[in-house]
Amino acid sequence: MAEKLRVIPLGGLGEIGKNMMLLEYGEDMIAIDAGLMFPQEEMLGIDLVIPDVSYIEERRHKFKAIFITHGHEDHTGGLPYVLRRVQAPIYCTPLTNGLISVKLKEHKLLDSTDLRTILPGESVQIGVFRVQPFSVAHSVPDSVGFAIRTPVGIVIHTGDFKLDHTPVMGQLTDLSRLAELGKEGVLLLLADSTYAEVPGYTPSERVVGEALGQIMHTSPGRVIVATFASLISRVQQVVDGAAATNRKVFVTGRSMMDNVQMARDRGYLSFPREMTLNVNDLKNTPPEQVVIITTGSQGEPTSALTRMANGDHQHVQVIPGDTVVLSASPIPGNESSVSRTIDNLFRLGARVLYNRIADVHVRGHAAQEELKIVQALVKPKFFVPVHGEYRHMVLHAQLAQQMGVAKDNAMVLVDGDVLELDGESAVVHQQAVQADYVYVDGLGVGDVDHIVLRDRQHLATDGMVAVILALDKQTGRIIGRPDVVSRGVTSIEESDELLERTKDVVVASMEGADHIVEWAMVNQTVKEAVANFLYREVHRRPMILPVAFEV
Amino acid sequence: MAEKLRVIPLGGLGEIGKNMMLLEYGEDMIAIDAGLMFPQEEMLGIDLVIPDVSYIEERRHKFKAIFITHGHEDHTGGLPYVLRRVQAPIYCTPLTNGLISVKLKEHKLLDSTDLRTILPGESVQIGVFRVQPFSVAHSVPDSVGFAIRTPVGIVIHTGDFKLDHTPVMGQLTDLSRLAELGKEGVLLLLADSTYAEVPGYTPSERVVGEALGQIMHTSPGRVIVATFASLISRVQQVVDGAAATNRKVFVTGRSMMDNVQMARDRGYLSFPREMTLNVNDLKNTPPEQVVIITTGSQGEPTSALTRMANGDHQHVQVIPGDTVVLSASPIPGNESSVSRTIDNLFRLGARVLYNRIADVHVRGHAAQEELKIVQALVKPKFFVPVHGEYRHMVLHAQLAQQMGVAKDNAMVLVDGDVLELDGESAVVHQQAVQADYVYVDGLGVGDVDHIVLRDRQHLATDGMVAVILALDKQTGRIIGRPDVVSRGVTSIEESDELLERTKDVVVASMEGADHIVEWAMVNQTVKEAVANFLYREVHRRPMILPVAFEV
Repeated sequence: MAEKLRVIPLGGLGEIGKNMMLLEYGEDMIAIDAGLMFPQEEMLGIDLVIPDVSYIEERRHKFKAIFITHGHEDHTGGLPYVLRRVQAPIYCTPLTNGLISVKLKEHKLLDSTDLRTILPGESVQIGVFRVQPFSVAHSVPDSVGFAIRTPVGIVIHTGDFKLDHTPVMGQLTDLSRLAELGKEGVLLLLADSTYAEVPGYTPSERVVGEALGQIMHTSPGRVIVATFASLISRVQQVVDGAAATNRKVFVTGRSMMDNVQMARDRGYLSFPREMTLNVNDLKNTPPEQVVIITTGSQGEPTSALTRMANGDHQHVQVIPGDTVVLSASPIPGNESSVSRTIDNLFRLGARVLYNRIADVHVRGHAAQEELKIVQALVKPKFFVPVHGEYRHMVLHAQLAQQMGVAKDNAMVLVDGDVLELDGESAVVHQQAVQADYVYVDGLGVGDVDHIVLRDRQHLATDGMVAVILALDKQTGRIIGRPDVVSRGVTSIEESDELLERTKDVVVASMEGADHIVEWAMVNQTVKEAVANFLYREVHRRPMILPVAFEV
Repeated sequence: MAEKLRVIPLGGLGEIGKNMMLLEYGEDMIAIDAGLMFPQEEMLGIDLVIPDVSYIEERRHKFKAIFITHGHEDHTGGLPYVLRRVQAPIYCTPLTNGLISVKLKEHKLLDSTDLRTILPGESVQIGVFRVQPFSVAHSVPDSVGFAIRTPVGIVIHTGDFKLDHTPVMGQLTDLSRLAELGKEGVLLLLADSTYAEVPGYTPSERVVGEALGQIMHTSPGRVIVATFASLISRVQQVVDGAAATNRKVFVTGRSMMDNVQMARDRGYLSFPREMTLNVNDLKNTPPEQVVIITTGSQGEPTSALTRMANGDHQHVQVIPGDTVVLSASPIPGNESSVSRTIDNLFRLGARVLYNRIADVHVRGHAAQEELKIVQALVKPKFFVPVHGEYRHMVLHAQLAQQMGVAKDNAMVLVDGDVLELDGESAVVHQQAVQADYVYVDGLGVGDVDHIVLRDRQHLATDGMVAVILALDKQTGRIIGRPDVVSRGVTSIEESDELLERTKDVVVASMEGADHIVEWAMVNQTVKEAVANFLYREVHRRPMILPVAFEV
């Protein structure tokens, strides 16, 4: 039987592999991207979610390379964790290389990693795969998609893209290359679905540059611009606007400082030294000559902008007369923290401009008309939507069908599905591969599971009550009065009477307990008695933790 | 010294009194609305947030009436709690009366409440205040604002409103009345700021009716429409669409069933009995003849639509061929749960239509051009924005200034501020009145405070570790080996080695502890030792709870 190409999405919150996509054929396996996801609300205490690479680990001898489409966290942020479990050379464009270097250095992994540069138009042979990047326009420069020649046909992965015809750094989505490949015949297209629910076209980055320039021109005082640290082209727009309005630039926020430094060193940012303000300059420069570039556009609790909004940034105190620009839109899940940051800045008397009231941000992803153009050029035999919530992928698959992909050939996958292709057919094996959430919490990677999260959820909602009993080693009888400690329940903490009655309930539940020799049974008995009592009394269901001492 | 009018916002998440606004003059005090707020993310385990009525309680002899603008939760939901602390007759329009009755009945407060009906154009004298409702268009019928004649001048409170010139149930915002009042001279305008950041006009409800009709006409199977239970006009649009497309209607979700029943009984809903489907009919009716109206448009965990999306609704199983319409937009804070519900419905194979991809909802609040019209007609001397986040109120105050209100006369207040007016001047006394968050958690009202929430947050993020010690009564020395129990921390739960080392740390920390007689000191010593150890080992900071037994 002939070999087949296996396409496997890994990681990405139950959705298809925004974070990591595997291609496997015979003895060769490559990955595209290795991203992370930010935790959802109910993932209490979790810092990050990364892809599960067990499948690769079990086949590490096959694993030949990781190709990175662009330098955003959701495509590169998993690398420090993935590289601790499986190694392979990483191929990416120069700016992406720089952004990854900053990250790997932080994790002390830079020296041990084989990080290689590849340019659009170049190609590299990895086992049976011949991989060639092509330029795409996105909200970070040097973004690419990949055309991958496999023994069964050409696979195209767009990465994140849009069709910006007037991008800031001159990088267009290479429609001609897509047309050529389409003409040659494309077996499978994997394309960005993030904005598949949005009709029409995504506006050009140029719109934002004009808006930022106008704001710097008309603002009477300092202008503080918050954006993503990886959005180097936006930083360039701010620097250009500052130059045009005779302002100098102060950069704050660790990741912004690191990335600006790197992009300057590598020639990706034209930012003359004499335009830079240091901390001392900042104090002594008239406000109308100052621009501040900062992290914190997502209202992240410890970011520079959030500190400013809370009045505890070390160097920048926001005052009336300041104009603050949030040059970003909230990532789903961050709406509340962004909203709070904006309100706090208004409270300090600043003028605040954000995406709902000014053209200070454009999306980085293609809307429906752009997605149709790509379908029209590539004319793939099979189509798999990638990147986006489940609904976006369904809508994108429908769009592909409207554009001519056969109904059964547009397939929505989820993590762990295996799509097997020969030149003619494509079959989905559902959840054939382990692709769980891997939670990162502090230094722990993968040690937090659903049970721990359920416990945290329980503690968060209803608090906890510990019941401490001294038991007679011989009889199993309770000795003295039990102790009860609670946190996060309130009714008990604040009512001695309820506390004493809870103890009474414990004692009563243990009556005749000299028959009970099993701790599991004591535990269960006390737990139920206290839980029922508290629900009856105060309608709450705290976590009950009986602890016994044998004396 | 002459008396002054005092205007005091109470409750509303640190924002101005969306929930409750007091007017006080001499020996008379009235309130407008008594709403609730839904908890923000960080308010763990909290069900509702209600206004703090301590100020009213201390002046209960003065408190003469509560006027309700309309029947939405954020304007009426606090009533069951407020009425347990202070009593006064409630004045509202007939449908609002009906919606409040349903709520008070649930809380067993209907019989003890003096609920009165008042119609637009009628007026009532309450002490020095003469109060007259005027019609406004909003997303629930029978909405009103109030014109209040006081000894120092006319005060207008718009309630929630928009200018819908083709509303579903024929109710327009009474611009003529506002013009008359403006001509007479208005001292103070309090107006809805919710959409003050949105340029232009809010579309008419009619747009939604047309879209719903079209969807029912073209859908091959069942149509399931989720909306707010109080949005009676939307229910009417669905019933009308069903009638026009030869479909019958099944209603599900407790609050939806209650409200539909009430609105039918009071003639606010034209919904013929023969169009109703019961559970048995539902099974036996062809899908193309079925419409289901349901709660759950906000993805609330126990709502009917969420149950359908999770595949555990008692009567409705969503299947391919079904069309689900979310005829609502997510309330800020609900974005994630709405998004999850939509994705789950897509997973079941349904076609899902929601505000981003179809005209199935319009906002209930005025946008900027509408707000300008109200300013132009009312021409108030003083202006206070109400309803909305802080940023919305700032933008609304700026809009009022553009429309001619003197700069210092447009004032953004926060809860607990007291605005004192005579006919000429207005002075703000900042946070002069107690107006804290009052949290409702289960049966507890107001017993959860910031400390409890901080504890819950701590438990949620890092879990807890209880350390149980037996201490010698005489020497204070530790007896035997301590016990350690943890939940939500994971590293300890899963590592016996770490558990034993934690116990070692406890023992070590107590060495030489025969000097320690104070439990507080033992407590502190153990807490610090364990906290430092765990942070060093696993970078986590669980809540540490030492418990000692004296033996």
